Amino acid sequence: MAEKEVEKGLTVKKDADFSEWYTQIVEKAELADIRYNIKGFVCYMPWATMSIKKMYDKYERLMEKKGHLPLIMPSLIPESNFHLEAEHVKGFTPQVFWVTESGDGEKFEERLALRPTSETALYKMYSLWIHSYRDLPFKRYQSCQVWRCEGKATRPFFRAREFHWIEGHNVFATEEDAMAQVQEDMETTYEMLQDEFAIPIIFFQRPEWDKFPGAVHTYAADALMKSGKVIQLPSTHYLGTSFSKVFDVKFMDRDEKQKYGHITCYGPAISRIYGAMVAILGDDQGLVLPFDLAPVQIVIVPIIFEKGKEDIIQRCQELKKELEEKYAVKLDDRDYVSAGEKFNEWELKGVPIRIEIGPKDLEKKQAKVVLRHTGKKEFVPDDKLRHFIDETAKNFTNELKEKSHVDFGAMIHPAKDFEDAKKAIEKGKIVCAGFCTIELDGAKCAEKIEKDMGAFVRGKRVDKETRKFEKCIVCGKPAKETVYIARSY
Amino acid sequence: MAEKEVEKGLTVKKDADFSEWYTQIVEKAELADIRYNIKGFVCYMPWATMSIKKMYDKYERLMEKKGHLPLIMPSLIPESNFHLEAEHVKGFTPQVFWVTESGDGEKFEERLALRPTSETALYKMYSLWIHSYRDLPFKRYQSCQVWRCEGKATRPFFRAREFHWIEGHNVFATEEDAMAQVQEDMETTYEMLQDEFAIPIIFFQRPEWDKFPGAVHTYAADALMKSGKVIQLPSTHYLGTSFSKVFDVKFMDRDEKQKYGHITCYGPAISRIYGAMVAILGDDQGLVLPFDLAPVQIVIVPIIFEKGKEDIIQRCQELKKELEEKYAVKLDDRDYVSAGEKFNEWELKGVPIRIEIGPKDLEKKQAKVVLRHTGKKEFVPDDKLRHFIDETAKNFTNELKEKSHVDFGAMIHPAKDFEDAKKAIEKGKIVCAGFCTIELDGAKCAEKIEKDMGAFVRGKRVDKETRKFEKCIVCGKPAKETVYIARSY
Repeated sequence: MAEKEVEKGLTVKKDADFSEWYTQIVEKAELADIRYNIKGFVCYMPWATMSIKKMYDKYERLMEKKGHLPLIMPSLIPESNFHLEAEHVKGFTPQVFWVTESGDGEKFEERLALRPTSETALYKMYSLWIHSYRDLPFKRYQSCQVWRCEGKATRPFFRAREFHWIEGHNVFATEEDAMAQVQEDMETTYEMLQDEFAIPIIFFQRPEWDKFPGAVHTYAADALMKSGKVIQLPSTHYLGTSFSKVFDVKFMDRDEKQKYGHITCYGPAISRIYGAMVAILGDDQGLVLPFDLAPVQIVIVPIIFEKGKEDIIQRCQELKKELEEKYAVKLDDRDYVSAGEKFNEWELKGVPIRIEIGPKDLEKKQAKVVLRHTGKKEFVPDDKLRHFIDETAKNFTNELKEKSHVDFGAMIHPAKDFEDAKKAIEKGKIVCAGFCTIELDGAKCAEKIEKDMGAFVRGKRVDKETRKFEKCIVCGKPAKETVYIARSY
Repeated sequence: MAEKEVEKGLTVKKDADFSEWYTQIVEKAELADIRYNIKGFVCYMPWATMSIKKMYDKYERLMEKKGHLPLIMPSLIPESNFHLEAEHVKGFTPQVFWVTESGDGEKFEERLALRPTSETALYKMYSLWIHSYRDLPFKRYQSCQVWRCEGKATRPFFRAREFHWIEGHNVFATEEDAMAQVQEDMETTYEMLQDEFAIPIIFFQRPEWDKFPGAVHTYAADALMKSGKVIQLPSTHYLGTSFSKVFDVKFMDRDEKQKYGHITCYGPAISRIYGAMVAILGDDQGLVLPFDLAPVQIVIVPIIFEKGKEDIIQRCQELKKELEEKYAVKLDDRDYVSAGEKFNEWELKGVPIRIEIGPKDLEKKQAKVVLRHTGKKEFVPDDKLRHFIDETAKNFTNELKEKSHVDFGAMIHPAKDFEDAKKAIEKGKIVCAGFCTIELDGAKCAEKIEKDMGAFVRGKRVDKETRKFEKCIVCGKPAKETVYIARSY
């Protein structure tokens, strides 16, 4: 790697060339290695993996608190399972990796899919597990990877042929109960993405032509990127009873009648959320991470001169010992790297708090504290240091959240007409506009938007909608909906 | 499942028919479902998954504490990677699941393996990541599943075509450093399996003919089952520099010379350890689990009569609220299941502590506490209950560990001669005996043992060996080693 060590920091501004910035941050902050020798597959390096594990942990805890139990399913699915649900097989088959043989080439009787998603594996088992209304609601999830042989260009974390997600699959007695779960999934998404990961999102009900294959309704969170594009983050789907019917998921109700279960599924792609977090929170110095997700939360850098070296190291070690009872602390005492290089390196890696201690600080009984998210530098007396750190730790993620949130509202542009919308899209805005319908009839108007603007109808806002338009921005017919249009990853 | 609900508890004694007992406990305690429609693949049900997740968590924390960093590798490996290491490809290719095509049948240029283990994926990347002695020791691990198309009969958790493990892969500057890691891996295994999971183990250095494909030395833990068979649990391997040479894992040493790294790998199969734990700790009533690993640690069962029902439920709810600050507590207030059935169900599922509260207990200000591992029942006054629970929780796993440990020593039989050994094996003992050599020359003697006794030379004990024999139990030549012989899963 010697030839690359010439420039360790980012050499491009995020605003100037977002795509190159992302490529650089993934490589230079050592998040992923794209040199793995299968197209579309990357290695997640420890720095990313440690944050991703923490994200999984938070997500799983919240889902279990809400009554979802974990299970682990086989990752292979027989081809015949797929063929039961017509929409589903149509949607996923083109992307499936197929296992066809073992050992020295012995063919299997039937092709086995590397799961692109687990409906067709799970619901066949659900028919064996669910019998009575007493089994409902039946709420399960698994944390696993899925494989999709994407045709589109892949990007580490954002879009890859193997990615890591949580999938929740739930069965209810009624549509009403199922829709309440969809609502809960959206709340869960806000609690995680906005509150914990500082990623601003909006939920849209997707148009008919952009639903999950086999779903009645699809609701998906879109996050906004600096580049003006949105990225689809977790989605939750009401599947109705179509899967229940083909997989025979039924229950004996209180009235002693056999009924089909109403199914919902929810799929937060943790690796993709991580990518979005890197992209949204990062800056020209490198990563910025929510406090809880940082693999190292506090780095201590001794500022060393020949004289008094031992005293400084000793003070740093004491401080480390004290702080690591509560925080993930690193003492960077490498003697072959300059202090300045260390500062850059840990800023690049997004360590939230840096503490510097030099001879003068020792003399004055203080430490210099530098905060990653604001860049603020402060000299803090030793006897106030612990309190200062605790307060900073407590407020860090909220401050980050406020910072990322403001940008979002400013990105929305209510469009007067098609040309106005097009211009706004070119400027990196999200357009809000009237639209004929998000039923299948509207697909033609959406195609025109895609063709002329390179943007997509994301659907109608779920949380609240205050704007109303008279006409469809494309065909001019009366607008049944207010939709949002954006470029997307 | 109605037809199966006739008999909810175990109908066979563990000692009488261990194999049937295991089949029943897996089904009736709802640990795994073997009805998934691919041979050798099973679903892990929530009750097992929750414990497995806790086992992963403990293992990962300990490994990270010891300086191993997590990463996530692609699960597919190009066939050409395998062919670089001759022994390795010979050992694993017969068991590989191959991905050959995607979508509607588009063939890949090269077959892609579902990883049976990750050496050939990782070490190719290690050559890009390791440059200098400063990068060493280089210690990484990943938690993932692996796939092996086993010819042998599969058993849930024990032996399956997809299983879940941690694999640690480390690079060192010298053989000495590498062997110290092997030692650390064995210590880690004891800390986890014996101390945390209450599974008694011994480490053996495996004979030449039973090593990991490509390893210089293999050290594996064997645990003893009631049936008299052993089960191989985590193994750690010193790979020398053979993989380094073919994958070009080298570093610039202090003396400015390029040197090949010495590699070790370690593979605790968490799902298999879980199976061993179920098998070793369980009894005729069902599961027995270490306290920390139980999905529910305390179950509260109200003993309800028509009169005073609300008061009892209220007391139970208060108790639950108090205890769940620290423990995983379940209040089983189902009104369509009798108290007796509840007792059986939670015993079957291995909940460590059961608290029963009925009208008399309410009157006497007490609760009945029943402990799963000893069967002890005790009436505890309300004002002493919290202390009693805390003490029980603290000591539970240690008591379990002592209980399982005693049986182990009694299973070892030092054999006088071949016939004596054979008889001991038939009685379900582990035989300790003289053996010519565990180098390749000894393979013939091992074959005779396998053929005549249905047992295997597990290797020589690593921890300490006090027994010495003059002659090989098979060929009568001078015994270079004291080995252990046992039937195995």
